[in-house]
Amino acid sequence: MRNDCPQPVSGNSFHEMWRELLPIGRHADSHGYRRFAWTGADLDCRAWFKEQAEARGLVYEVDRNGNQWAWLGDPAAGDAVVTGSHLDSVPDGGAFDGPLGVVSSFAALDELRGRGVDFTKPLAIVNFGDEEGARFGLACVGSRLAAGQLTVENAHRLTDGDGVSLPRAMEVAGYDPDTIGADPERLARIGAFVELHVEQGRALDLSGDRVGIASAIWPHGRWRFDFRGEANHAGTTRLVDRRDPMLAYAETVLAARREAQLAGAVATFGKISVEPNGVNAIPSLVRVWLDSRAEDQASLDAVVGGIEKAARDYAAAHGIDLDIVRESFTPVVEFDHALRDELGRILGKDTGITVPVLGTGAGHDAGILSGSIPTAMLFVRNPTGVSHSPAEFAAEDDCVAGVIALADVLEGLACT
Amino acid sequence: MRNDCPQPVSGNSFHEMWRELLPIGRHADSHGYRRFAWTGADLDCRAWFKEQAEARGLVYEVDRNGNQWAWLGDPAAGDAVVTGSHLDSVPDGGAFDGPLGVVSSFAALDELRGRGVDFTKPLAIVNFGDEEGARFGLACVGSRLAAGQLTVENAHRLTDGDGVSLPRAMEVAGYDPDTIGADPERLARIGAFVELHVEQGRALDLSGDRVGIASAIWPHGRWRFDFRGEANHAGTTRLVDRRDPMLAYAETVLAARREAQLAGAVATFGKISVEPNGVNAIPSLVRVWLDSRAEDQASLDAVVGGIEKAARDYAAAHGIDLDIVRESFTPVVEFDHALRDELGRILGKDTGITVPVLGTGAGHDAGILSGSIPTAMLFVRNPTGVSHSPAEFAAEDDCVAGVIALADVLEGLACT
Repeated sequence: MRNDCPQPVSGNSFHEMWRELLPIGRHADSHGYRRFAWTGADLDCRAWFKEQAEARGLVYEVDRNGNQWAWLGDPAAGDAVVTGSHLDSVPDGGAFDGPLGVVSSFAALDELRGRGVDFTKPLAIVNFGDEEGARFGLACVGSRLAAGQLTVENAHRLTDGDGVSLPRAMEVAGYDPDTIGADPERLARIGAFVELHVEQGRALDLSGDRVGIASAIWPHGRWRFDFRGEANHAGTTRLVDRRDPMLAYAETVLAARREAQLAGAVATFGKISVEPNGVNAIPSLVRVWLDSRAEDQASLDAVVGGIEKAARDYAAAHGIDLDIVRESFTPVVEFDHALRDELGRILGKDTGITVPVLGTGAGHDAGILSGSIPTAMLFVRNPTGVSHSPAEFAAEDDCVAGVIALADVLEGLACT
Repeated sequence: MRNDCPQPVSGNSFHEMWRELLPIGRHADSHGYRRFAWTGADLDCRAWFKEQAEARGLVYEVDRNGNQWAWLGDPAAGDAVVTGSHLDSVPDGGAFDGPLGVVSSFAALDELRGRGVDFTKPLAIVNFGDEEGARFGLACVGSRLAAGQLTVENAHRLTDGDGVSLPRAMEVAGYDPDTIGADPERLARIGAFVELHVEQGRALDLSGDRVGIASAIWPHGRWRFDFRGEANHAGTTRLVDRRDPMLAYAETVLAARREAQLAGAVATFGKISVEPNGVNAIPSLVRVWLDSRAEDQASLDAVVGGIEKAARDYAAAHGIDLDIVRESFTPVVEFDHALRDELGRILGKDTGITVPVLGTGAGHDAGILSGSIPTAMLFVRNPTGVSHSPAEFAAEDDCVAGVIALADVLEGLACT
């Protein structure tokens, strides 16, 4: 694993920023990050953001939902160009998912100042709160609230594993929870939002590109499968007398792989809860969660439909009761086509190279905001494709290429 | 589900005893029993045992390992006839597994007193501690310690899910943990131990008998399989880039069923632990436990060998590291042939009926003690075969038949 710093971009402090962030919230044993919303590690990241803003003479502010902003120019002028990402992490996440976008944003501003460009539009760098949803179970809370995709009522219902509510957690962290809610005025001031992110896959590695542009976020959802059989003694119950839900589950795991493979999609059973979960007990309940994503809705329907059918067939064959509940679903998110094409033009301008345009299976704040304002994403090559893991990695040269690409995009959008 | 009471045996208080025990440690939602060693429910059962002993004028004592004894006659006289079972339960177990043997023992004594028999040997009723091993993970702790099959050193290493050690748990429960260890002098005083138990299978139901005699306990063991892959993002990691241990596990579950079926044995994966166990995370670790049992050693070797080979093949095919550890193993236990034949003679004496002799896949204190003293078991019909479940059941008439059979056996052994 290498979490060491990319080389400094000429004229900026990428290297120094990266070095400052690296130790925050990093677990001594796992070497993974545990920067959960409104905890100490998150607050340390937020303090770092504020310092970076002030060190650059930017106007620092916190919006009504706890998202942090650093402004160059007048926020009220309108048609602002905004970049940024998030600083929180999944449990034992990597160093790059989120922070690479924020650090690259400040570095790109430094790069543009080094170029001596004139800004014709306001520019802002943003850190959206609680993107990963690791603490309260819902992803992109900061951007969802702003976009009105999460009601205040539902936000108040969010609690963490210790029973602490989101408002209470914000309060403890020194933020005012009474102000949370939709923020259309703020969003109305934004002409374009561009989020840079480490790729969570190997498409760029396979195509041999350092940087790519997002086309869309695949439709994705979570389904809970409850396979119910009959608890019984594992040593004395004849096979023919068993109603063992583990068998139907095992068949379903293999069916999920087959269906995903057929459709060029992904399907994963990563979470399981078994009752009574005893070595010498046939389970009464095998509860599992399916995560599935595909390029388009028809493919996703085919995959999940195929898995559901296989599960029901197997369950019936083994005398198992099966309930399937869709717990969450997000339809396909197409990023703004005009902005996407503009990014392609800007990045291909001097080189003539066509920057690859690729879809992604992961959700992002840019996806949430795409319903309210024009948004786009840049991806930086991930040579192993590993994500949400301490082993997540991006090479120094690729990170630098990402900063330059983001600087080019901001110059093209805000300095014309 | 019926956990109501068998009808009273004439002249004894079976009905009343059953009624007193029924509510202890019964969970309001699951209706299953949670009588774990040295917890409040277990202590309530123990208090009940002491009351039953004292109400019958028996000499009550606790041995150095916390097992409870109720003596009729002089314990030091030697060649004692002992009966009994256990009062603890698996998580959400049934009412009969264990308690039926203890209640039937007291009821059989009441029956014999009603018959006005003369005892020529000392008689004792025993409640062995921690038979199920639900709390500390090792079954038959009380009898193992007494028989020297569990060293004091290893007993001290046992801890429950909350990190509480066995000695500490005993201490908290008011028992002296400093005395635990092998108890050969006590065992040397016993001429025969007969344990009555509800059948954990359907052999008697299929043969149409109320009561049977045990021949042997099948060889059985537990194996832990650690399938290790690589944690990664479930939404963005291409199928070909995954090392998902859940797939190899699923294949192994199905292989276990096939191998057990081929050999006429049983094999069960009932306990699982997944890391990181997140809905959108490919697991890094799938840790599972195999319980397998067969009529003889060769069959068990064939089953487990076949499962291990399948697991290794699948793991290699999916790029998964696999460790397999045998956590426990008990070879076949043949109950004392002379005592078994004696029980058959006694029970067939008046009727001429041949009582069926059957093997079992479940471990028992009688199996542990069979290496030290002559032991035998009586099984009472279980019409569904369900065991280790709230739905476990035995019919009133069959329970009464079991009490009478046990009384006959005790009379034959202790009153001649």
